[in-house]
Amino acid sequence: MNVVVQHIERADPAVIAGLAECGVATVHEAQGRKGLLAAYMRPIYAGARVAASAVTISAPPGDNWMVHVAIEQVQAGDILVLAPTSPCEDGYFGDLLATSMQARGGVGLVVDAGVRDLRDLTEMGFPVWSKAVFAQGTVKETLGSVNVPVVCAGALVNPGDVIVADDDGVCVVRRDEAAQVLDRARDRMAKEEDKRRRLAAGELGLDIYDMRGRLADKGLKYV
Amino acid sequence: MNVVVQHIERADPAVIAGLAECGVATVHEAQGRKGLLAAYMRPIYAGARVAASAVTISAPPGDNWMVHVAIEQVQAGDILVLAPTSPCEDGYFGDLLATSMQARGGVGLVVDAGVRDLRDLTEMGFPVWSKAVFAQGTVKETLGSVNVPVVCAGALVNPGDVIVADDDGVCVVRRDEAAQVLDRARDRMAKEEDKRRRLAAGELGLDIYDMRGRLADKGLKYV
Amino acid sequence: MNVVVQHIERADPAVIAGLAECGVATVHEAQGRKGLLAAYMRPIYAGARVAASAVTISAPPGDNWMVHVAIEQVQAGDILVLAPTSPCEDGYFGDLLATSMQARGGVGLVVDAGVRDLRDLTEMGFPVWSKAVFAQGTVKETLGSVNVPVVCAGALVNPGDVIVADDDGVCVVRRDEAAQVLDRARDRMAKEEDKRRRLAAGELGLDIYDMRGRLADKGLKYV
Amino acid sequence: MNVVVQHIERADPAVIAGLAECGVATVHEAQGRKGLLAAYMRPIYAGARVAASAVTISAPPGDNWMVHVAIEQVQAGDILVLAPTSPCEDGYFGDLLATSMQARGGVGLVVDAGVRDLRDLTEMGFPVWSKAVFAQGTVKETLGSVNVPVVCAGALVNPGDVIVADDDGVCVVRRDEAAQVLDRARDRMAKEEDKRRRLAAGELGLDIYDMRGRLADKGLKYV
Amino acid sequence: MNVVVQHIERADPAVIAGLAECGVATVHEAQGRKGLLAAYMRPIYAGARVAASAVTISAPPGDNWMVHVAIEQVQAGDILVLAPTSPCEDGYFGDLLATSMQARGGVGLVVDAGVRDLRDLTEMGFPVWSKAVFAQGTVKETLGSVNVPVVCAGALVNPGDVIVADDDGVCVVRRDEAAQVLDRARDRMAKEEDKRRRLAAGELGLDIYDMRGRLADKGLKYV
Amino acid sequence: MNVVVQHIERADPAVIAGLAECGVATVHEAQGRKGLLAAYMRPIYAGARVAASAVTISAPPGDNWMVHVAIEQVQAGDILVLAPTSPCEDGYFGDLLATSMQARGGVGLVVDAGVRDLRDLTEMGFPVWSKAVFAQGTVKETLGSVNVPVVCAGALVNPGDVIVADDDGVCVVRRDEAAQVLDRARDRMAKEEDKRRRLAAGELGLDIYDMRGRLADKGLKYV
Repeated sequence: MNVVVQHIERADPAVIAGLAECGVATVHEAQGRKGLLAAYMRPIYAGARVAASAVTISAPPGDNWMVHVAIEQVQAGDILVLAPTSPCEDGYFGDLLATSMQARGGVGLVVDAGVRDLRDLTEMGFPVWSKAVFAQGTVKETLGSVNVPVVCAGALVNPGDVIVADDDGVCVVRRDEAAQVLDRARDRMAKEEDKRRRLAAGELGLDIYDMRGRLADKGLKYV
Repeated sequence: MNVVVQHIERADPAVIAGLAECGVATVHEAQGRKGLLAAYMRPIYAGARVAASAVTISAPPGDNWMVHVAIEQVQAGDILVLAPTSPCEDGYFGDLLATSMQARGGVGLVVDAGVRDLRDLTEMGFPVWSKAVFAQGTVKETLGSVNVPVVCAGALVNPGDVIVADDDGVCVVRRDEAAQVLDRARDRMAKEEDKRRRLAAGELGLDIYDMRGRLADKGLKYV
Repeated sequence: MNVVVQHIERADPAVIAGLAECGVATVHEAQGRKGLLAAYMRPIYAGARVAASAVTISAPPGDNWMVHVAIEQVQAGDILVLAPTSPCEDGYFGDLLATSMQARGGVGLVVDAGVRDLRDLTEMGFPVWSKAVFAQGTVKETLGSVNVPVVCAGALVNPGDVIVADDDGVCVVRRDEAAQVLDRARDRMAKEEDKRRRLAAGELGLDIYDMRGRLADKGLKYV
Repeated sequence: MNVVVQHIERADPAVIAGLAECGVATVHEAQGRKGLLAAYMRPIYAGARVAASAVTISAPPGDNWMVHVAIEQVQAGDILVLAPTSPCEDGYFGDLLATSMQARGGVGLVVDAGVRDLRDLTEMGFPVWSKAVFAQGTVKETLGSVNVPVVCAGALVNPGDVIVADDDGVCVVRRDEAAQVLDRARDRMAKEEDKRRRLAAGELGLDIYDMRGRLADKGLKYV
Repeated sequence: MNVVVQHIERADPAVIAGLAECGVATVHEAQGRKGLLAAYMRPIYAGARVAASAVTISAPPGDNWMVHVAIEQVQAGDILVLAPTSPCEDGYFGDLLATSMQARGGVGLVVDAGVRDLRDLTEMGFPVWSKAVFAQGTVKETLGSVNVPVVCAGALVNPGDVIVADDDGVCVVRRDEAAQVLDRARDRMAKEEDKRRRLAAGELGLDIYDMRGRLADKGLKYV
Repeated sequence: MNVVVQHIERADPAVIAGLAECGVATVHEAQGRKGLLAAYMRPIYAGARVAASAVTISAPPGDNWMVHVAIEQVQAGDILVLAPTSPCEDGYFGDLLATSMQARGGVGLVVDAGVRDLRDLTEMGFPVWSKAVFAQGTVKETLGSVNVPVVCAGALVNPGDVIVADDDGVCVVRRDEAAQVLDRARDRMAKEEDKRRRLAAGELGLDIYDMRGRLADKGLKYV
């Protein structure tokens, strides 16, 4: 029942790097407005911006044993995604685990629970998106699983899915859709550039998107 | 039922500028401790400080069509105030709409829902006070209204009311009370300056405000 | 019933200073994973780090009269700890009270309610850990008590207990356990240094803490 | 600043009685999907169903003095609507005040805070819709106002507006729209009766409301 | 992108009936402590107890169009499971839709949002587990999908999975594990019967489960 | 560190029985408006009403081992009070443990977490006040303590303190103040009886409590 899946597929590193540049909002739109984790998942400091392959953790509340197990499975460019099996705010992760992650090339953590050692993590440049900041310590008594599908902050995350995270929050992209999503995201960004220029020049969205007729049809009254 | 009110009264720009300097806490006190929006309305970055005339939006949950309609009504020095018709965290607003706002002289957004593109908005210096940061996209299907009275984060906001917002949150001042509130706010600030000096010199509030007698009358015991 | 206790015991200043250097997470662990205030208690700005003797306040909701009373009891190196008698978000404290606190050598505030004047408090370098930022003004009508035991954000705080607070939140240490907790915290930090080096060199927690056997005994399967 | 408005207009009692029969959901729809108080406003017991004229109270947090003042303004068929001036859960109201209300013909309470004495209120058949059940006592120190417009649980309520409340929550109807809303509500109920019969007979909403074409136009695929 | 899957597999009706008798807590334990929806999913009335095959709905916030689409896919013994694409409390469902459901043999609704017409639903004996009771009406403008996997209240639900729901909340069982889970649940119930008798006779869990030695080994001290 | 205190003092059974009759709201007032647990602590069914001696449990999140340990310490007329060491909603307690409690004369449970088996507990007449109803199972791996002071839902509870609980929530009375609190509570009830009669006869609180003068002094205006 409690397993560690040792071999997972990952997306093309070039695709992952491309998604990082697009950012959460664009990627979310590009894949049809799906994949967002809940809005309460906030970064511990401003300005972080990553895309990475998910190494997933299903862990009991208040027990971070599986984090140690998971780090052995981490490869360069991976991010941990931890979902507790019931709601929890405890501090599953701090600067020692971040040191271990960085030693293995891990680039961040997404945790639907708490994190601690904010000062150190910030100085180390190790980004975390979490539900809470909480120093509460955890035990190492009960097994969980590593690299199984988890629901984290309301989103299904499979091991090897691409996590995109920045100041706007966290978005998951299915591994086998990553390349296509990147294409669409770049398309969207290119189109937005033109719109941005027109809007900056004072044109209205009402005109650029040709909304006036449909608004009138729906019955909007100007008074 | 769904209307856009095109002509609204605004307060005197000099009064509005004065209120910005006073800040939320002082203005709130000066008008008799009223007008605050809920404490969950937080700025997306520290240090922003504005006062502006409200262009109000009543919009369905998850539908930002009316934002486009509202921007046409924005004049230099205005701020958008968006209240969804039922609780919602979706990202009604991002960097493209902010570009459009800035092109028209708009100075910010107050939204009882979500916002996205935080990195861009911060770089643009476009302040937003919101309930959530959430990249969730919205549709453009259902009408709302622009420049009608709305209840936003627990406070009634009329179009043309003055919004004062800073690190402490958001406060609304009735348009026709703005000048009087500014007078009182400046009075208060002047009086506070004297108190600040005395407190900094080590005098106690107990003595400055002459509280000891009344405390004793109420029965406070020193042991 | 409503009392001000004027003479409280405080911990050794050197011990208090030592605890500040250890930080919340380490101190919490060193004393057996206890003493944390709730995770919703967040600092108003990043980077603050204090340890100080608690001057406690039990105050009615929306009434900050007792803060004035408490400040008279503050000595250099003290921190105020305010617990409302029922849940409240009002702004009990702002820049004038902070000025008074600093004049008396007070070093901060922990308040299970709201705070205001964030810009000023930040510029003054006066740290506050609070449940909310809210400009809502308070009255001065109803008595409370000063320097009595209070439950603040879920933790029992006695007057004279040591408050440790930083970016991770707030932890309370019993006055008479402070020296022993400091010893254990320093021990822990020393041991962590070695672990940090080994983890940074690529060793795994699984090996450093010798976890593999016990994981296998519990039934963890690698697939 | 603190006033008691003694003379308020009320809607026609027959209209009010009619609205009670329609219930919250129907009335909310009939007036264009507006007027609902927040979903957290729940009845203290199941089955209550009232419509009544609002006597409004703006009261400080933790201070129920104005409830006593308001009861003098209550006429037969009125309901109290209490909005604290900042968020509060305290028990503003219990069985003694309910006794007083019933003696004057008052029919209920809507309170964006707490209530207590549930057993007694239930036995008395005095319905309350509240944010919380909480025995926390209140003081009588600070003035508020009676029969002024208030924002209660996110909805603007004017004195004399009609409150409709049942197991679904609370809805406010503007006094001068009450008759028209009742007409529309009855219309809606009549039309629903026919739909209910057809649905009960196994017809689908897809066919009754003729949705299939529009769904196909929007691109819905059956697979 | 927006699809209606018309043919889904369902579990054996006898197995489903068996799971209903076991109840949520037992089924949750029997399948290894997984499958629970969030604790905020509460029944609208006490005493309901169902197990049924899930017909799933992914719907935009504030838009219940897909409920009509889904009901056509409902067979006798099915339950609707609705997950909004972003957090929402609106009332997606009321007595008319329940009438339609009952006409087709549908037995209930699980909705991570709001429901209305509580009085009618209760009288009809149509159970609903929801996040909120809220009369807020919805629109019919934007497509979603029917019978696709959804994350509802934190749990992944596939179409055809078995939903077990009672006063304790909601649990999902994978369709292809249902028979095995039922076996284990019945085993568990049988074993519990013996324990219940022994506990009722005054034996202690400490002895029945032979805990004393392990407690001592862990260091528990009796003082 | 982890202890079971086997001998605790309890209050006089007659006093405890008396407090049960007074109920939570009266007892809370009688002891000076203190002792309430947070408003989120709700009974699992209406109408329960108990007073009992607290057997306290400090337990790790998601671990109910100490409940078994605590039940051995329960005497007739005791109630369990469980505080997790960090926030948790898991179901620590169900019908088997309730069976064991009843066999030993235990009369209820107060748990700042979850409970399950609601149907059975209701049928057994075993009342529980909890933060959540949640079937989530717990482990038995980590020690806690029994009969030590705990902070439960924001209130300090010592072993042997009297818990009063009913539809209004939960209140704790210090063991050594119980008799005095009962006297005051009975006094209060006697006085309330007279007030209830006068209010029922139509007298106003404004007159009974002689409030009009003070209201005028404070500046209340009737318009």
